[in-house]
Amino acid sequence: MSERRLHHTISFLSDYGTEDEFVGVVKSVIRTIAPHATVVDLTHGIPPHDLRAGALALARAIQYVDAGVILAVVDPGVGTARRAVAIEVAGGEGIFVGPDNGLLASAVAMTGGAERAVELTNVEYHLPSPGPTFAGRDVFAPAAAHLAAGVPIEALGPEVDTASLLPGILPLTTREGDTLTCEVLWVDRYGNAQLNVDADELAELGDRVVVRAGEVVRTAVKAGTYADIPAGQLGLVVDSYGLVSLCFDRRSAAAELGLAPVTEVVLEAAGDERGTVTEVRLGRRP
Amino acid sequence: MSERRLHHTISFLSDYGTEDEFVGVVKSVIRTIAPHATVVDLTHGIPPHDLRAGALALARAIQYVDAGVILAVVDPGVGTARRAVAIEVAGGEGIFVGPDNGLLASAVAMTGGAERAVELTNVEYHLPSPGPTFAGRDVFAPAAAHLAAGVPIEALGPEVDTASLLPGILPLTTREGDTLTCEVLWVDRYGNAQLNVDADELAELGDRVVVRAGEVVRTAVKAGTYADIPAGQLGLVVDSYGLVSLCFDRRSAAAELGLAPVTEVVLEAAGDERGTVTEVRLGRRP
Amino acid sequence: MSERRLHHTISFLSDYGTEDEFVGVVKSVIRTIAPHATVVDLTHGIPPHDLRAGALALARAIQYVDAGVILAVVDPGVGTARRAVAIEVAGGEGIFVGPDNGLLASAVAMTGGAERAVELTNVEYHLPSPGPTFAGRDVFAPAAAHLAAGVPIEALGPEVDTASLLPGILPLTTREGDTLTCEVLWVDRYGNAQLNVDADELAELGDRVVVRAGEVVRTAVKAGTYADIPAGQLGLVVDSYGLVSLCFDRRSAAAELGLAPVTEVVLEAAGDERGTVTEVRLGRRP
Repeated sequence: MSERRLHHTISFLSDYGTEDEFVGVVKSVIRTIAPHATVVDLTHGIPPHDLRAGALALARAIQYVDAGVILAVVDPGVGTARRAVAIEVAGGEGIFVGPDNGLLASAVAMTGGAERAVELTNVEYHLPSPGPTFAGRDVFAPAAAHLAAGVPIEALGPEVDTASLLPGILPLTTREGDTLTCEVLWVDRYGNAQLNVDADELAELGDRVVVRAGEVVRTAVKAGTYADIPAGQLGLVVDSYGLVSLCFDRRSAAAELGLAPVTEVVLEAAGDERGTVTEVRLGRRP
Repeated sequence: MSERRLHHTISFLSDYGTEDEFVGVVKSVIRTIAPHATVVDLTHGIPPHDLRAGALALARAIQYVDAGVILAVVDPGVGTARRAVAIEVAGGEGIFVGPDNGLLASAVAMTGGAERAVELTNVEYHLPSPGPTFAGRDVFAPAAAHLAAGVPIEALGPEVDTASLLPGILPLTTREGDTLTCEVLWVDRYGNAQLNVDADELAELGDRVVVRAGEVVRTAVKAGTYADIPAGQLGLVVDSYGLVSLCFDRRSAAAELGLAPVTEVVLEAAGDERGTVTEVRLGRRP
Repeated sequence: MSERRLHHTISFLSDYGTEDEFVGVVKSVIRTIAPHATVVDLTHGIPPHDLRAGALALARAIQYVDAGVILAVVDPGVGTARRAVAIEVAGGEGIFVGPDNGLLASAVAMTGGAERAVELTNVEYHLPSPGPTFAGRDVFAPAAAHLAAGVPIEALGPEVDTASLLPGILPLTTREGDTLTCEVLWVDRYGNAQLNVDADELAELGDRVVVRAGEVVRTAVKAGTYADIPAGQLGLVVDSYGLVSLCFDRRSAAAELGLAPVTEVVLEAAGDERGTVTEVRLGRRP
């Protein structure tokens, strides 16, 4: 049923950081088992235990990831009953390996959905472990490497119903009259704040948009790219993922507006007569 | 005496960080000399000049590291009389390259001990250098790469007595009556504080243990994994290295208890009658 | 005119950091197009948008970089009229890919100068992009990968006059009488502050040198390497790039003297009669 198939790329995302040797040990384990494979680090800078951030980063990256094995580990429930899984997608072009805690769900969906999944319970493909706290090293890395080396997925453990895999949660916007309530998905290194708003939703709001985040109210202009935003002006840019980002040119919108992931942001069409709305800060006493 | 042997993996640990281009330059030098070899970064996040942290990270990683060359550079004495060495272990399966300052000692011991060592004084295998301060680039990287490319170890310099290599220092615990005095070896990204205490030593202390660190006194419970620790409770977990760690579930034990590497910690068996001991802070005046 | 030539190494420098997945996505794009090539990360820790720091890091690294493609992205003007270019050097041994904003200029000059350059306007070699803000992924990475895979440089876009490429700016020292006014080029992880002063310029100042930076005045001693600097004493070391660095042994000169890139520093020969000059801080009121 399963043909033997080598995978030459293992793409790897985690919340391990790079200060400790966690990433290096996982890659050493892979190197020992699957020396033919190249590991491509997507990022290891996901904040510790932040499943939402990990799921979003993986979803942003997935369409660019090479065919092969995708290893993703953000695993606050390590060592508990949460399942460790491998999920086959795209006719076997890709296999996700990681915890069944929602981390993989959006990326799996974007590649066409889970076609087959197994629980990684076959200890023949685990490393012997002095403790249960480093599944990346002892369970996930060996699984990823053995899959890359051609071990069929069904050898790693019993098949599980793909419908039973934990779904991801994608925050939705809500439209009420003239206002669109959304949230910050991601603040990148440059301080751009990506919203869960796409280009079409933005287009409905007209050329000038009032942005409210907590007590901050600003009028923003739409711009094609960062450098097109007038100096000192807040911009709305359709970013490289097709989503709307709040940006300044060469300054951090997140720092200036106090934005972080999950911050609620309200966008409102600023009519022509409101084109002169300037920055105010609510709640200031005279 | 020495057979020509290619090594396909160079595992690399340093205190170089990744903000500067040090790591990239070392890998470029390796790439030029030994293009067939893959470099596996163990970590470059060792705090600057912290030999103890580097030696411990290398020791934690070493059993998972692929056969081949292990390049490790934490080198506060760069350019001085401290020797630059290559150390052969395990019948030539592994060769350590680095400064002879104790950094390599524990990991070398864990692989069976030094079988042969040379001092890297043959300038034919150095890069010409405008200054003596970047031995990683000019001495260690070329040595590692030439070894990977099959240059026999004895070509790199004169043999040195393996008994003359600087030993590592592993902190020991001391047991006095009911108390075990130990120290923090490592605080990881998640704030777990690994102690120099193994599972057997912990077992002797019973199910509940009083933990003292500076002025902080807490009762800790033993748990199989992080998520098994009751909310708000300090846990003692046998970690993935077989050592005991002070942990909370999804919170930083190090931040909460003020722990850092080398912090002294005293563990004491909490008898049944002491099961109700709650947190106090010594030294508070009424 | 152009022979097909595979390149096996793509050296990669950017200001992307490693917290986000930018680097991972760029490497995924490269991996998909040029699976035969190895990516060597020079550094991704250039401060955001800091062209000067990026250009200097690339210049420090370039003589050690393997032949092949050099991909460098620090690109504050992404999406604007600044050109995206590929620049051939050294008879095709090396091809730089990046923005034409001065980032590449010094490194290109150090490899013998631009021999041929094209603007990366052929969209057949771009990724389709939902927005113009991630040229690293959509323009530069595919160009670098296709060049590595043997696509001739002229296929990527029209040739541009190499004389029209934006030059780099290298800060010069000024000598007035006994004083040499220079600036901090770089502060490394260890706090050493590299100056734009070479060994010859330093030699002219004699054995003891007065260092002024802002209000700080110190006498510094010349030393062969960090560990040769007497405890507590400021040292002047010819570093591994042949430039003069202000250093302490195992302490941060930058932190102690308040130095950062672009800080102006004045060096002055301290005559024998001034050998007893000790630290003073100007501007202190009695």
